Amino acid sequence: MASQEVPKTCKVILSDTIAKKLLAEVRETLAKVQDPNATKPTLAAFLANDDPAAAQYADWSKKTCEENGFNFDLRKVDKEVLEDAIVAANQDDSVDGIIVYYPIWAQNHQQDRYIQETVALTKDVEGLCHTHLFNMYHNVRFLDPPTNHKKSILPCTPLAIVKALEHLQIYNPILAYGNRLFGKTITVINRSEVNGRPLAALLANDGATVYSVDINGVQVFTRGSGIRAPRHKVLDKEGWGLKDVLPLSDVVIGGVPTENFKVPTELIRDGAVCINFSSYRNFDGPAVKEKASIYVPSIGKVTIAVLLRNLVVSDPVPVSANRRV
Amino acid sequence: MASQEVPKTCKVILSDTIAKKLLAEVRETLAKVQDPNATKPTLAAFLANDDPAAAQYADWSKKTCEENGFNFDLRKVDKEVLEDAIVAANQDDSVDGIIVYYPIWAQNHQQDRYIQETVALTKDVEGLCHTHLFNMYHNVRFLDPPTNHKKSILPCTPLAIVKALEHLQIYNPILAYGNRLFGKTITVINRSEVNGRPLAALLANDGATVYSVDINGVQVFTRGSGIRAPRHKVLDKEGWGLKDVLPLSDVVIGGVPTENFKVPTELIRDGAVCINFSSYRNFDGPAVKEKASIYVPSIGKVTIAVLLRNLVVSDPVPVSANRRV
Repeated sequence: MASQEVPKTCKVILSDTIAKKLLAEVRETLAKVQDPNATKPTLAAFLANDDPAAAQYADWSKKTCEENGFNFDLRKVDKEVLEDAIVAANQDDSVDGIIVYYPIWAQNHQQDRYIQETVALTKDVEGLCHTHLFNMYHNVRFLDPPTNHKKSILPCTPLAIVKALEHLQIYNPILAYGNRLFGKTITVINRSEVNGRPLAALLANDGATVYSVDINGVQVFTRGSGIRAPRHKVLDKEGWGLKDVLPLSDVVIGGVPTENFKVPTELIRDGAVCINFSSYRNFDGPAVKEKASIYVPSIGKVTIAVLLRNLVVSDPVPVSANRRV
Repeated sequence: MASQEVPKTCKVILSDTIAKKLLAEVRETLAKVQDPNATKPTLAAFLANDDPAAAQYADWSKKTCEENGFNFDLRKVDKEVLEDAIVAANQDDSVDGIIVYYPIWAQNHQQDRYIQETVALTKDVEGLCHTHLFNMYHNVRFLDPPTNHKKSILPCTPLAIVKALEHLQIYNPILAYGNRLFGKTITVINRSEVNGRPLAALLANDGATVYSVDINGVQVFTRGSGIRAPRHKVLDKEGWGLKDVLPLSDVVIGGVPTENFKVPTELIRDGAVCINFSSYRNFDGPAVKEKASIYVPSIGKVTIAVLLRNLVVSDPVPVSANRRV
């Protein structure tokens, strides 16, 4: 009886808290690689939609950049000239990294994908260019083997979620690096090419069993075993849905980009960890706090910290020039 | 009164007829660039779906390859190992060109897009890699400026439709090259990144006014004017639909990949030219023949001819090696 009366407590962790530690690391790296007389690295951010979430995200990005030693150059452009503006920034030596606020063509993700691919590989700090994604899936760490000076970038939102899971100690540091999610079951609700699918692969490669859910069904991602298949494996789970995977999951990650989707709280396991990376609230806040052990209502500020991390670990012109001195 | 009684006749042109001329040109080019002792150029075709249309298309491709001096190597693979199989073909010197039958993940075009980008640029005879598409939009003709030995490839289905329009003399050879669609109004029903949008841009660059229609609405593509904007321009036409654009159109091009979509015949202008590039019939055949002056019910065999053309004009290993002798 007594155990039923112990109040359930859910720890709510804000993305700010997780971002702080990452930003301290970014400042440290920047101080190491940056000549004090050099100009600050510049992040060019293209805003070509009217999404208030994007505008708010741009405001946060500006503040974060300025507080941490970066220039933030917001460029508001019409979507019809966006491509030309990106091409100009690709060729502009004063721009070290480029980000673009998506979605632009809300109902045509394929055209957004075209724009993602238009960003020059060496300035893509979001990790959305095909070569970055391909390298992630294939566990290739550098863009320039065998020299290995230029790191391949992981896609920023999936990486932000990995960083959040590390902060929350879901990644167990007792285990060996690369094996720290072994034994964990994780549901990721979203299987887009830029967020959900790479996230599922990253988590599976670290040892988790990952249920990847979208409107078309469920796939399970697991780490390949043996020497010949070190990469993740994917299997379709015919007929499965949230009702089958949520009760099994230690961690539930929501990334559905619509206002009316809510993860059914009654299916979530008692004491699960719930993380939302959609700009809409995928969890019913008051209800999920009665169920979850940890709830992270948004990941946005971690993503910004990861962008700056990508900017200093990639090879921006002023930074790398100093690094080789 | 008499004029009303003149029977309307619609000329039905099959893709075979259009393909024949192109294939003769391909054989001629091949004879010029190919050492008679060299092995035939090899096209590797990856089939990873159960689509009967794709299987039929593969059969046609095999026949066409063998009749025209190419090897056709059909590789049936599970979609889960497709990426690795393509990577192997990218690295295999005995493969000169690669094609993949889409859709693979029927409900996730983003993942198909990932596969398209995985094909090596120099072996992509479908013209679907981002660099090929980017070059098309920007009117860049070569992959290796300023050497200009390696031609950038136009996406195969849009190019097949251009070739069909040339055959049908909708491109008016009396006009200057690059201006041969001036004065024509064309509706393209499909605005995918691999078919409809590049097609609209190509036709606009040749002088047409192009209405690009998808389920989200209508955009008009026109050629940019003046020195600073030689590329096509795009404008949204708020509230417009097929009812507004079909009555204005000299040419109606259907590319909707679903069985139940039909172009409303009653909206088509008397004497219009109707072309279908979907694997489903977008036009009601008997009805459209009462309205159209020319009807092309499918474009598939032209697309195969274009693939072989792309294979000989791009830089396949045996061909280019001889070309430089």
